[in-house]
Amino acid sequence: MERVPILKIGSILLVSIQVDMSDQTAVQLQEDLAERIVATGAHGVLIDITALDIVDSFVGRMLSTIASISKVLDAETVVVGMRPAVAITLVELGLSLNGIRTALNVERGMELIAAARDDDQDLDEDEDDAGPDGGPATETTASR
Amino acid sequence: MERVPILKIGSILLVSIQVDMSDQTAVQLQEDLAERIVATGAHGVLIDITALDIVDSFVGRMLSTIASISKVLDAETVVVGMRPAVAITLVELGLSLNGIRTALNVERGMELIAAARDDDQDLDEDEDDAGPDGGPATETTASR
Repeated sequence: MERVPILKIGSILLVSIQVDMSDQTAVQLQEDLAERIVATGAHGVLIDITALDIVDSFVGRMLSTIASISKVLDAETVVVGMRPAVAITLVELGLSLNGIRTALNVERGMELIAAARDDDQDLDEDEDDAGPDGGPATETTASR
Repeated sequence: MERVPILKIGSILLVSIQVDMSDQTAVQLQEDLAERIVATGAHGVLIDITALDIVDSFVGRMLSTIASISKVLDAETVVVGMRPAVAITLVELGLSLNGIRTALNVERGMELIAAARDDDQDLDEDEDDAGPDGGPATETTASR
């Protein structure tokens, strides 16, 4: 049985779906992902579907299930890399991908997860918003 | 024909090989990668082979070719996620993966690429090694 690899990048788990998903592969992926989220304390799951020519109701349901499982485990799920044709077919089929966030590519997906995370976090790092160079702020203090 | 998706993460291109590579898929991947490196100006290529049960001479040659092409285009190639059994088989087959760097997982591969990059870059950012909080440095100035 084929197994979809799960890659850890920082606090994000990345899954690139390239093979046709069978019932068994889908269940295995859900179990593997749940285990990895718990083991790594990941904050987000990115599911890349660049390779998919079509997202039918089966895959749609799988994505929804993964999103629900991740949510319970305190991780955001973002589906990335959807092709234009896939989006059109999804709408034509009347599938809405309930509860699933999407982003255009992996980088935007990561930003989305980071942004969702920042909302939850305290705002410690906003204190020193003088800019990375910090030049002007120091000068003002010195000139007084 | 199946196409292996190439994901851009920062200045790195990530390829997760999950399908059996045919001659045509391999050539297509090499072409796609070369184009993406040029288009994105990527500094590194990570090839994840977690899903591969075996790396035979064909796949080994493909990896070597990709590494060579990337090198010409000024990008480091790192193969990540090799299973223990694959490593053993590689050695038993007498394949050495010439010119290919490997790392245990995606994160270490990224570190490897970043480290190789840092060697080339100037050391601008080492100047301000007072620490990210910058607190003590400012206080010293103020107390004078």
